[in-house]
Amino acid sequence: MDVAEFRRRGREMVDYVADYLENLEQRPVYPDVEPGYLRSLIPTEAPLEPETYEDIMKDVERVVMPGAASPACTELETVMLDWLGKMLQLPECFIAGTQGHGGGVIQSTASEATLMSLLAARCKAIRWVLASNPEKSEAEILSKLVAYTSDQAHSSVERAGLIGGVMMRKVPTDNSYAVTGDILKKMVEEDKAAGLIPFYFCATLGTTPSCAFDHITELGPICNKENMWMHIDAAYAGSAFICPEFRHLLNGVEFADSFNFNAHKWLLINFDCSAMWVKKRSDIIGAFKMEPLYLKHENQESGLVTDYRHWQIPLGRRFRSLKMWFVFRMYGLKGLQAHIRKQVGLAKEFESLVRADKRFEICAEVIMGLVCFRLKGSNELNQTLLKRITKSREIHLVPCQLSGRFVLRFAICSRSTESHHIQQAWRHITQLTFELLQEPAH
Amino acid sequence: MDVAEFRRRGREMVDYVADYLENLEQRPVYPDVEPGYLRSLIPTEAPLEPETYEDIMKDVERVVMPGAASPACTELETVMLDWLGKMLQLPECFIAGTQGHGGGVIQSTASEATLMSLLAARCKAIRWVLASNPEKSEAEILSKLVAYTSDQAHSSVERAGLIGGVMMRKVPTDNSYAVTGDILKKMVEEDKAAGLIPFYFCATLGTTPSCAFDHITELGPICNKENMWMHIDAAYAGSAFICPEFRHLLNGVEFADSFNFNAHKWLLINFDCSAMWVKKRSDIIGAFKMEPLYLKHENQESGLVTDYRHWQIPLGRRFRSLKMWFVFRMYGLKGLQAHIRKQVGLAKEFESLVRADKRFEICAEVIMGLVCFRLKGSNELNQTLLKRITKSREIHLVPCQLSGRFVLRFAICSRSTESHHIQQAWRHITQLTFELLQEPAH
Repeated sequence: MDVAEFRRRGREMVDYVADYLENLEQRPVYPDVEPGYLRSLIPTEAPLEPETYEDIMKDVERVVMPGAASPACTELETVMLDWLGKMLQLPECFIAGTQGHGGGVIQSTASEATLMSLLAARCKAIRWVLASNPEKSEAEILSKLVAYTSDQAHSSVERAGLIGGVMMRKVPTDNSYAVTGDILKKMVEEDKAAGLIPFYFCATLGTTPSCAFDHITELGPICNKENMWMHIDAAYAGSAFICPEFRHLLNGVEFADSFNFNAHKWLLINFDCSAMWVKKRSDIIGAFKMEPLYLKHENQESGLVTDYRHWQIPLGRRFRSLKMWFVFRMYGLKGLQAHIRKQVGLAKEFESLVRADKRFEICAEVIMGLVCFRLKGSNELNQTLLKRITKSREIHLVPCQLSGRFVLRFAICSRSTESHHIQQAWRHITQLTFELLQEPAH
Repeated sequence: MDVAEFRRRGREMVDYVADYLENLEQRPVYPDVEPGYLRSLIPTEAPLEPETYEDIMKDVERVVMPGAASPACTELETVMLDWLGKMLQLPECFIAGTQGHGGGVIQSTASEATLMSLLAARCKAIRWVLASNPEKSEAEILSKLVAYTSDQAHSSVERAGLIGGVMMRKVPTDNSYAVTGDILKKMVEEDKAAGLIPFYFCATLGTTPSCAFDHITELGPICNKENMWMHIDAAYAGSAFICPEFRHLLNGVEFADSFNFNAHKWLLINFDCSAMWVKKRSDIIGAFKMEPLYLKHENQESGLVTDYRHWQIPLGRRFRSLKMWFVFRMYGLKGLQAHIRKQVGLAKEFESLVRADKRFEICAEVIMGLVCFRLKGSNELNQTLLKRITKSREIHLVPCQLSGRFVLRFAICSRSTESHHIQQAWRHITQLTFELLQEPAH
């Protein structure tokens, strides 16, 4: 949608809202639909090709309005997570469908998804230990639980451990910054020998510092064998798995108990929209189910109704699946794939520019839209370069540390980035580099 | 703003966004402002009288755009929470100002605010016990911690205890469904004698079942003396404290460590916007501070910069203070007070209708916009009445249980509710009641 169409459609939408407000009293107080009504009204998969805005708006009136805010909000979310799960070729066990035991939910951020998975795993582990050791106290078991994640994992994973009150051990990574099976296996065995109870591993697909990928085809079977919950945090990289050429990086997801990525990061859906799937809904629901009278409703015992309040930290929810529905249909799967491919292509273009300049080096394999690079030389030199880049206010780079080295990260993430922006950014960086290296100190 | 003006302003806003997109490249990549820039550009308090939409939009360009998304998003939030805190006449210690130790933050829901306060309290308690008993393990201390809340408290409080892995004891309420000082004191003393460590009390101002108010002027000093964190959950009722005639219900907040209410519930701000204040920012920030290199920034050590990511469960944030800014200025304090008073008046009108009908009884004092009532008679009779009300789809009531009795709750909460809606709802209820009582079984 170009800006001219945005103006037109935006005005139409304002009128739609205004008409709704003016005619509110003619609408029914309760929706007159049966649980599960929505799924039969829309396709089972996202369209391949883009659809028109008119068609989508017609469906708002046909599909959403009869189900009002509730249950339409919940049911559209379940179906949209099924659509997205199918785009990612997630194993059938993660798809809610009409009969599955798994399913998806929108969380606010990956931090929240990680926390929810850790809490569900904690609850499951405590119950499991209590089943064979009823004499133990929950506090005693809690003090023995140990979780694992990469030393490259996002800080929110460590934070989830703090909130959950469990030990979180950092697993050292190999020279491509990935966790491999052998090292996790060794740590788990040592901890078990020391009387601890390994219960959770958070794998990362696309680490924040360098977009590294843990070896989940090795790690998954270890977790399954040891009765440890495997959660996969693919916050950034997850969007790319809708492209067949990147899907192999998700191989091993079949061993995971939960999987999450931020559709708001790289899939053209506005913040917030963090998509999370679980293999067994009952694992996450069972962790903290509360049923006061004022939150009870008729259909909840039937098994037909999803109550997302049990899947998340907050109680209230927004209708975030609407923006997924609009984006998936406005772009179609092909349009979304084209977006990912374009951005990866731009990263490769930047990588080529860096590689062609002997003063610089590439610090990690460029797989997606992130390029980690640095000036050959000291950390101080690179810190100075970054300070000057920041001070000149033309581009925005965020650094990281890789194997003790200060590294610059060039990330492509805006919808509107084009080749000429990449070229312009590189000219800017090389100009500042030229000036920096001219100075006597260097 | 009426619907006609909404159409006009909505179109202008669509054009504003479209213009922004078209001219994005002319805007600076980084804002050129100093930390704290925003506070000096706007008044220190919300206006008494409504302002015009034009004036607010002019300020978006003048105040927000130079600070872009960051730091404007954070700084406007801090100042809006100060505005709102002043409307509530919160003690100075909760106001951030330019030098205070307290301050406010927007959480998604009251559930999240309760959880954050409990986690901060847990962290503080563990550190405090460790300081004088360094030989104890964190797990051992955790197993002794005990939190308290009303037996009328919202289910999310109990859930926060489960997530935090601490005991949560329900304090019995008096015959007006409120927690009093003597009963909490007795429980705390018993638990201390049993070797437990009381560390947290969540008071409720305006309980979900009946809008009862815990006696915080008695409870606060007990918590302070016992070194227990007092959190106040005023999710629904908090909005009313902007009216002087309701403010006395908040007396005792000076003893609290944190206070929260849902501005999205009753203050005309769209979901989500749960306003939370803490007396000491360091208490909440200190609980789970994480500083990886990719989240570091220059000004964070100066003390001038607020980093709300340390105040909440998620990492990312939305620009929710904008809607507070618009609503406070479009209505003015007087307009917001008028809204509260009108809705309380409508509840009183409904109460009068119920009291005038001898078949019915009022089940709890009507203080705000909630009327708890029932047919004199069995629980079954009232359950049947509610089923018929629900089935006829004209109004929506949610029940509760008070002293073992099944009670109907009539809540006024929509912006557009008028006296004729109340009269119409009552006619509907009495018609269904008439039919029900005609039947032979009754």
